[in-house]
Amino acid sequence: MGPAADEWLGVLERFVCDGGKRIRPTFLWFGWLAAGGHHYPELTDALHNVAASLEFVQAGALIHDDIIDASETRRGRPAAHAHFSSQHAHAVTTQQATGDSATIGQSAAILLGDIALSWADDMFLSAGLTAPALQRALPYWTAMRTEMLTGQYLDMQGETLPYCDADNAWRVNRFKTAAYTIERPLHIGAACAGASPHLLHGLSDYGVNLGIAFQLRDDLLGVFGDSEKTGKPSGEDLREGKRTKLLADALTHLAPAEHDELWNLIGRPLSAEELHRARTLLHESGAVTRSEAEISSLAATANESLLNLLHHNEISPAVTESLQTMIDTVTRRDY
Amino acid sequence: MGPAADEWLGVLERFVCDGGKRIRPTFLWFGWLAAGGHHYPELTDALHNVAASLEFVQAGALIHDDIIDASETRRGRPAAHAHFSSQHAHAVTTQQATGDSATIGQSAAILLGDIALSWADDMFLSAGLTAPALQRALPYWTAMRTEMLTGQYLDMQGETLPYCDADNAWRVNRFKTAAYTIERPLHIGAACAGASPHLLHGLSDYGVNLGIAFQLRDDLLGVFGDSEKTGKPSGEDLREGKRTKLLADALTHLAPAEHDELWNLIGRPLSAEELHRARTLLHESGAVTRSEAEISSLAATANESLLNLLHHNEISPAVTESLQTMIDTVTRRDY
Repeated sequence: MGPAADEWLGVLERFVCDGGKRIRPTFLWFGWLAAGGHHYPELTDALHNVAASLEFVQAGALIHDDIIDASETRRGRPAAHAHFSSQHAHAVTTQQATGDSATIGQSAAILLGDIALSWADDMFLSAGLTAPALQRALPYWTAMRTEMLTGQYLDMQGETLPYCDADNAWRVNRFKTAAYTIERPLHIGAACAGASPHLLHGLSDYGVNLGIAFQLRDDLLGVFGDSEKTGKPSGEDLREGKRTKLLADALTHLAPAEHDELWNLIGRPLSAEELHRARTLLHESGAVTRSEAEISSLAATANESLLNLLHHNEISPAVTESLQTMIDTVTRRDY
Repeated sequence: MGPAADEWLGVLERFVCDGGKRIRPTFLWFGWLAAGGHHYPELTDALHNVAASLEFVQAGALIHDDIIDASETRRGRPAAHAHFSSQHAHAVTTQQATGDSATIGQSAAILLGDIALSWADDMFLSAGLTAPALQRALPYWTAMRTEMLTGQYLDMQGETLPYCDADNAWRVNRFKTAAYTIERPLHIGAACAGASPHLLHGLSDYGVNLGIAFQLRDDLLGVFGDSEKTGKPSGEDLREGKRTKLLADALTHLAPAEHDELWNLIGRPLSAEELHRARTLLHESGAVTRSEAEISSLAATANESLLNLLHHNEISPAVTESLQTMIDTVTRRDY
């Protein structure tokens, strides 16, 4: 469809190939092994394709999320809309383009995210699964996309409210993160291998608890993380006004004066001093300590779910160990 | 997922149920009949579902397109992003929301378009097709989405160029309109019924010619159409700066002074006098007459493709007649 289309799609290729934690494909693969996928070595390539297709879902989600959050940086590089904007701005300086660069960058990124979501489906459907495996996995695939997108909407909508709604933060953590990042990838992999209802249920217990812990860690990194490691500017969540459980908890526990002070430090650009002050208030409220404790508690509950599955011979000791390692990876990361 | 999610998704429900020409489902159904679908009455419901899923693709495409084109109106009502913006603006006046209404309306619409595209896939995949029918239709389904989205990008990207590129206009007409609106819906329906390569090829001949005629009619309606009938403000294409074949042709044939005058009348708000002047220039260039002639010629070629298929017993007289009626519907419409 011509060189302009090639160049545009090249941005998606680089986005998908150049980085990311690959956390969803990893969980999908462990879900497959948990349900005995190693007994079907002829489907290994197909499962790799299914796992990879999750990276296209994630590319579409992030490209659109960065527009919605007005994030200029992703994985240490310009976000897709920022890339297209600066490319257009450069063409304007050499009289090769006209129009508003911000709007045009955003439009190019909306459509690129759309094609990423479409190609995710294409890759999943043409992965090489058997027809029965595809039929078993499909309900979890479709649930995942709806949960992720609706969770994204609730996340964004929550930021428009003139208060911090802890219930909404819970829903976002449950659907946008826990279901999308851990529970459903595990289910898709496990369903491909014909998992029992008991195993699927146990993987939910593990995935939801660990997924919420993942988001609580993300919330801490969004305020306290090192931009060199996260690839995002430090304190980004505060500037974006993200209504995290961390923030909701801090606001609940601060005295009225400090409550108002913290509330006035979110949803706008912050000086280094302001960022420091917001962090101090989060610490002083006890929210950081409570969040760390909750992460530990959720990790312990996730671990119990695994031991329960092991005890009932639903998963092997090797898979138990791999999924235990993932608890550490997910909850102790600094990136 | 809560009342906020229900309310948001209700906007999609109304969008899909309340209007539209249903042109893509109609072509899909005729593709099915062309390939002998009436021999499989047990698949009628499944084919209705497949046909309806195209309306979700179209909803996603239009919701995002209206953001990209900054169109405030769709089907005579506020576009999705405009609806969410004014809903938010109202909540701001009653202190129930904060933030920038335009940005928030747009974000809600980006995610709603995403979920429309996802649900299109979900509906297609769970339509009730047999596994072989689904496998036959899938390549055309995936081609359609990529062609539509890439065509949308080329359309948008063409509008950033400081000139009117006729080659790009052709590509947009070929992929965004002809493939997406007519050729691929016919293919999907026909493939479900096990169409021969010869029939699929003939339907391409018909679909591409008629599809380009459809777009040329759309281009004329975008400048000269009656807003009461089209549901879009009159002259919208000029204000948006759409790089149509009509515009490219007019610019090629106008003398330098008129060329520059017309070029200065696109891509910005126009007074009633300016809109009238732009229309006059399009007429004076001969582009309107040539476009009408090309529509007639494309319609005749599409008809020949049908007669050729009929002659080779690839389609029945009844289907030939239905598809001939669609030539009139598509090329002579005023809405």
